[in-house]
Amino acid sequence: MHTSSSSGQNASLPVIVIIGGGFGGLCAAKEFQDAPVEVILIDRSNHHLFQPLLYQVATAGLSPADIAQPIRAIVREQKNITVVLDEVKEIKPASREVVTGDLTFPYDYLIVAAGARHHYFGHDEWEQFAPGLKSLEDAVELRRRILLAFEVAEKSPTDAERQQAMTFVVVGAGPTGVEMAGAISELARHTLRHDFRHIDPAHTRVLLVEAGPRVLPTFSEKISESGLRQLQQHKVEVLLNSAVTRLAEGEVDINQQVIRTRTVVWAAGNKATPLAAMLGGEVDRQGRIKVNPDLTIPGHPEIQAIGDMIAATYDGDKPVPGVSPAAMQAGTHAAQNVLRALKGEKATPWKYFDKGSMATIGRNAAVAQIGPFQFGGLLAWLAWVFVHLLFLIGFRNRSAVLLQWIWAYLTYGKGARLISGKVGKWGLLDKTEKPSPEPRP
Amino acid sequence: MHTSSSSGQNASLPVIVIIGGGFGGLCAAKEFQDAPVEVILIDRSNHHLFQPLLYQVATAGLSPADIAQPIRAIVREQKNITVVLDEVKEIKPASREVVTGDLTFPYDYLIVAAGARHHYFGHDEWEQFAPGLKSLEDAVELRRRILLAFEVAEKSPTDAERQQAMTFVVVGAGPTGVEMAGAISELARHTLRHDFRHIDPAHTRVLLVEAGPRVLPTFSEKISESGLRQLQQHKVEVLLNSAVTRLAEGEVDINQQVIRTRTVVWAAGNKATPLAAMLGGEVDRQGRIKVNPDLTIPGHPEIQAIGDMIAATYDGDKPVPGVSPAAMQAGTHAAQNVLRALKGEKATPWKYFDKGSMATIGRNAAVAQIGPFQFGGLLAWLAWVFVHLLFLIGFRNRSAVLLQWIWAYLTYGKGARLISGKVGKWGLLDKTEKPSPEPRP
Repeated sequence: MHTSSSSGQNASLPVIVIIGGGFGGLCAAKEFQDAPVEVILIDRSNHHLFQPLLYQVATAGLSPADIAQPIRAIVREQKNITVVLDEVKEIKPASREVVTGDLTFPYDYLIVAAGARHHYFGHDEWEQFAPGLKSLEDAVELRRRILLAFEVAEKSPTDAERQQAMTFVVVGAGPTGVEMAGAISELARHTLRHDFRHIDPAHTRVLLVEAGPRVLPTFSEKISESGLRQLQQHKVEVLLNSAVTRLAEGEVDINQQVIRTRTVVWAAGNKATPLAAMLGGEVDRQGRIKVNPDLTIPGHPEIQAIGDMIAATYDGDKPVPGVSPAAMQAGTHAAQNVLRALKGEKATPWKYFDKGSMATIGRNAAVAQIGPFQFGGLLAWLAWVFVHLLFLIGFRNRSAVLLQWIWAYLTYGKGARLISGKVGKWGLLDKTEKPSPEPRP
Repeated sequence: MHTSSSSGQNASLPVIVIIGGGFGGLCAAKEFQDAPVEVILIDRSNHHLFQPLLYQVATAGLSPADIAQPIRAIVREQKNITVVLDEVKEIKPASREVVTGDLTFPYDYLIVAAGARHHYFGHDEWEQFAPGLKSLEDAVELRRRILLAFEVAEKSPTDAERQQAMTFVVVGAGPTGVEMAGAISELARHTLRHDFRHIDPAHTRVLLVEAGPRVLPTFSEKISESGLRQLQQHKVEVLLNSAVTRLAEGEVDINQQVIRTRTVVWAAGNKATPLAAMLGGEVDRQGRIKVNPDLTIPGHPEIQAIGDMIAATYDGDKPVPGVSPAAMQAGTHAAQNVLRALKGEKATPWKYFDKGSMATIGRNAAVAQIGPFQFGGLLAWLAWVFVHLLFLIGFRNRSAVLLQWIWAYLTYGKGARLISGKVGKWGLLDKTEKPSPEPRP
């Protein structure tokens, strides 16, 4: 690419740079559909990810391609968008430039929707032992670890190693943690039930560790109780008011008590992208930037931030949750503010509209909180399936996913049970496993 | 696992160890269905791969899970099989033991079906620049390189770099090479047609390099001519009697002439697994072991070898091709020989039955040679689609694949266009790309 002005557009058009092809960034980009502007959409991955279903990839229910679409394909018809696959290294508000590894993109307006990563509360060294779940790479790595754990158990020469391999710890009982714990338990108790000869996957332990007093803390107390009940029905051991005090290879300390496990999933917290700090302005404990009511950055009316990387409130002082509807609403609003500015109008404040939230625990098990309605069980699960299929981008994905869910529902089979990487990459295995050369009598 | 004798079976049962869960190994294993034996099936990956469609994963048409099934799921109902996910390090014919990284498996009978890898004819250092296509990992890596090439082209500051990125070289015009070349050309000319703003993917060059005088050398001359014609219709530049004389980062020499490219696919030859050499006995240039007519190893009637790792002939001196039907037929026969031995009967010689062969070039384009019938074009393509769907293992895969093929046929869309790995892993890119910091006027 020569420069951003050579994308076949008139160089005099205002340039809007959008960082991030997630829900927020895409909604912002689409809002410029017929506007006389040039849009540069920068993302470090080539695909838009349907994050709410990422846990299904991590637990072998879906394939990566089922929940991801190439960003280029999504915006193909919108000729005023140039998609750039690159990682943003620096934002220069003073000179109004975005710098990537390869190129520099001057902008007239900037919308930053770069999201968040995991938050290890000052223990970044824990990530290697307890990966989180944000990207497709994360999901495939978790899938590898989870499936491999059962293979290791099958081969374990001692009961201790077998139990260690068949113990899974999920840290954090928000929606992601609840969904992961429920899905791992289901994978073990149903999908893998008849696959092994030396272990009974039904003896798998799944621990869900929550520092607070209840699961799904962002939901109502009633929902939390329903969620807890359904988790226990799915054989998930829920530990409330419990903190991880140490994480090491092969074990985790919960309230100073050692649990031997080779598979820990981190779903305990988010930290905004480091880009947030580059915008100047104040950030909170989780690195999220405090934006003005109209989503602009203090002192920079030409820069707006949206999605998981901002700290915003609604209905007085309620914090806006880090969910896709919030990102989508903010993305649309931010783009409309830019269009207003181009027409010489003032930016308007953003108001988050809470459409409700859901979390799924397993087969026929979920919770939903929609306005005044709160319900759990089969009805919530059906609502969850319906909503998520509805929102999946692209016919192919939706139908392939629907097909696989129907099939999985009927058979408990999970289709994407692939362990990628060679055996040589067994990681922990090679270190913890001892050869057992006992010859046959 | 304690020892192979502890798999819930009676320790006095004869133990048959099968190395490899490909077409050959699985057919052998299934033959022991109701036999009073204990079967240990060892594979270094947890899935059986439908290799004939691997090129579709490499070109983003299918997802890995669409062409792979967990071996455990396939043999789930056959209780006398124990599946072991491990890499065989050593075969000891003298003591009748198979040694993996973790365990030792004594056997009464051994069936080795460990397949082949790529053959670089003494230039193993070329593999990094020109990966081949045997495993899912290979396919995902090739997909990454192919899709990334277009992203690099889109961002290239100079015409030279753009042309380099949009030039693809496939080495070897056997079925795999022909299928890869055709699929890359189709991906560029149809799937990606409208996705970029700075390049026209229709200008993509796909070179198919063949050392011999014709494409598809294992087919008839008539088929070769038809294949050549169809390749050229699909805008593939076929270079016959052409050899790769040098391979380096960013360029390849063909007949001493330098072609600048960042994407080379190696489909030029196979080399049998190193395990073949451990069996003692004579091996050919490609490391394939020469077996007795009954598939046993000279001097070891209790060891049989099958599939791509053996050098066998049929109808006098015709070499048995390295195709899945040959492996499946040999697998079944090897198992039957073991059952004969258990009954005190003599092993019988194996005869390969040629069911014919096919190769696909692209949409509506393929060649087929079935007994006396030789045909190309739409009819061959339909036959190819039918046969491959038919043989895909497992309902879920077949239907998901069918769905995606119908959808792709109607839209030219390819669903699995995911570039995995972070931008930091762009490999060649970081080295060959120069930043182009030209500011906008």
